[in-house]
Amino acid sequence: MKSGISRVCVGLFLTFMPAGSCFAETGPVLPDPLPSWNDGATKQSIVDFVNAVTDKSSPDYVPPRQRIATFDNDGTLWSERPVYFQLFFILDRVNALAPKHPEWKTEQPFKAVLEGDREALAAAGKEGLLKLAAATITGMTSAEFKTIVKDWIRTAKHPLLKRSYTDLVFQPMLELLDYLRANEFKIFIVSGGSIEFMRPWVKEVYGVPAEQVIGSTVSTKFEFRDRTPVLVRLPKIDFINDKAGKPISIHKFIGKRPIAAFGNSDGDLQMLQWTAAGSGKRLMALIHHTDQEREWAYDRKSRIGRLDKALDQAREKGWTVVDMKNDWKVIYPFERQPSRLQPVTK
Amino acid sequence: MKSGISRVCVGLFLTFMPAGSCFAETGPVLPDPLPSWNDGATKQSIVDFVNAVTDKSSPDYVPPRQRIATFDNDGTLWSERPVYFQLFFILDRVNALAPKHPEWKTEQPFKAVLEGDREALAAAGKEGLLKLAAATITGMTSAEFKTIVKDWIRTAKHPLLKRSYTDLVFQPMLELLDYLRANEFKIFIVSGGSIEFMRPWVKEVYGVPAEQVIGSTVSTKFEFRDRTPVLVRLPKIDFINDKAGKPISIHKFIGKRPIAAFGNSDGDLQMLQWTAAGSGKRLMALIHHTDQEREWAYDRKSRIGRLDKALDQAREKGWTVVDMKNDWKVIYPFERQPSRLQPVTK
Repeated sequence: MKSGISRVCVGLFLTFMPAGSCFAETGPVLPDPLPSWNDGATKQSIVDFVNAVTDKSSPDYVPPRQRIATFDNDGTLWSERPVYFQLFFILDRVNALAPKHPEWKTEQPFKAVLEGDREALAAAGKEGLLKLAAATITGMTSAEFKTIVKDWIRTAKHPLLKRSYTDLVFQPMLELLDYLRANEFKIFIVSGGSIEFMRPWVKEVYGVPAEQVIGSTVSTKFEFRDRTPVLVRLPKIDFINDKAGKPISIHKFIGKRPIAAFGNSDGDLQMLQWTAAGSGKRLMALIHHTDQEREWAYDRKSRIGRLDKALDQAREKGWTVVDMKNDWKVIYPFERQPSRLQPVTK
Repeated sequence: MKSGISRVCVGLFLTFMPAGSCFAETGPVLPDPLPSWNDGATKQSIVDFVNAVTDKSSPDYVPPRQRIATFDNDGTLWSERPVYFQLFFILDRVNALAPKHPEWKTEQPFKAVLEGDREALAAAGKEGLLKLAAATITGMTSAEFKTIVKDWIRTAKHPLLKRSYTDLVFQPMLELLDYLRANEFKIFIVSGGSIEFMRPWVKEVYGVPAEQVIGSTVSTKFEFRDRTPVLVRLPKIDFINDKAGKPISIHKFIGKRPIAAFGNSDGDLQMLQWTAAGSGKRLMALIHHTDQEREWAYDRKSRIGRLDKALDQAREKGWTVVDMKNDWKVIYPFERQPSRLQPVTK
């Protein structure tokens, strides 16, 4: 665990640790860079990979500029149940905008949303969803949309868990992002969700800057309003960043093949295949939602985040499959034991 | 020239300077970060801008994560005459591929290229050009295309100047890129040319990593060949990164508004308008090709790199206009005086 850990050690040393704690008398004491991960084969596969590609004396060494790691968002970095959080955003927007649209009281699928009629909403299908999206997340300028997203993410609550959506990110994955960054990986989020839905908050929540977010897009139009240039979000899909769309957008936005990729569903399969097809050591990993108690348990039969073909392929190829229930000590950051560094008040 | 220069000084100190040369007895001696730029209003506008946004005590201070600078490529970072260098690439590819296409001997516009018939080539117009492009830069995988570009850029020569194309970059702009990077700017190339035509060589030539290159794209298709996933370049335009396309792609790829933008033609006008429309201090600059002796002189009437409306707007708004003839001591790197650091052999 040489080069990877020692760099983390330096990083921790500078921020948290009392002087000297990295190097005790008996030799270096290595702090665990992934404390929320249980020890075992899964964690070891990650640490072994990072050590191999960062150790200059290793035949698997990869220079920092090629250390690209891609992460799906929904179901990989945060939860995605009972539906993708972006859908809750759209439903919340329908409710927020309803006073200005009296016609929605009688018009489907708006009526279904306003009345909380799940059956009617489900019956409206994909076409209904596109109608809701067009009415709520297009038509405004990109700047206006950013403000809407920022306000929503700051105030909205998950209807079942009664928590902020940004509370529902996975603590072990936050540690993994930090660990990779400490080892000079450049991290990109490659999500099926909308780029502009993620960019306003990913830096704060994941530490990933806006320019390292790839996602689905609507077309935009450059025009002048009050003599000021704006980009207007059009009700027209530009790109769906799912399945084969992921390697396509990775190549378009990054132009380098990732050496590590993390997903959780069949929508991530092609991203993992594309990553695996490069030469040298690679890490392909799937988050398997197996924890009915602490999160959700679902895979092959699920409509949201279906994990079926990708699970078969992972087992066939020996990719890392993260068993949430057994591999993760905690799921969400709020479950953590109070830190020893924080004063205990009771 | 506080924070900017002192950082450059540290950088130079570590790489080039004899110890102590940054700080002489009488106080800090500041090396000129832009030695190929003549002193004057143009250079000063750049230095003043950089100092203002990097000085923490300045009301114009901008934190590093917002220091985004965008650069057009053709005519801004390298020459573009008598035609865009990517067109020479396409013509060279027609000649290289001709032995495999005996039918091209009689088929236009291929016949015109093979016979060097400029009139017939011009007569073929945009449609002819697209036909040439489809035949030469699509159909292969992205990996195959990368190899083709790398081989070409390494061996091809500009037909008039008999120089490698990468010799024909602008020395003052290379210094500007270094200067901005030393001041923690993140630089993106935003070109009308093809992303995949630039990515194989921009790191080596400009120091810009592949993931910070934005350009025009063809559609690609993810498929399996010999059980290996590949991306195949299709003869279908995905996006033309010119004029209003530039702010659209900047917003899509970066998601942050640049605080500095550099172009040279009307194709860059919207990028500069988009940059100018942000709050706080901004730098909008145009390279005006005014040097018939050392490069080319052209603006309002030129078919390649026309600078007409953008020049009017620059003058109206007080944007920086770089007069190549008067503002630049040298144009190309090969014109420089032999460095004092290199041994003089004769």
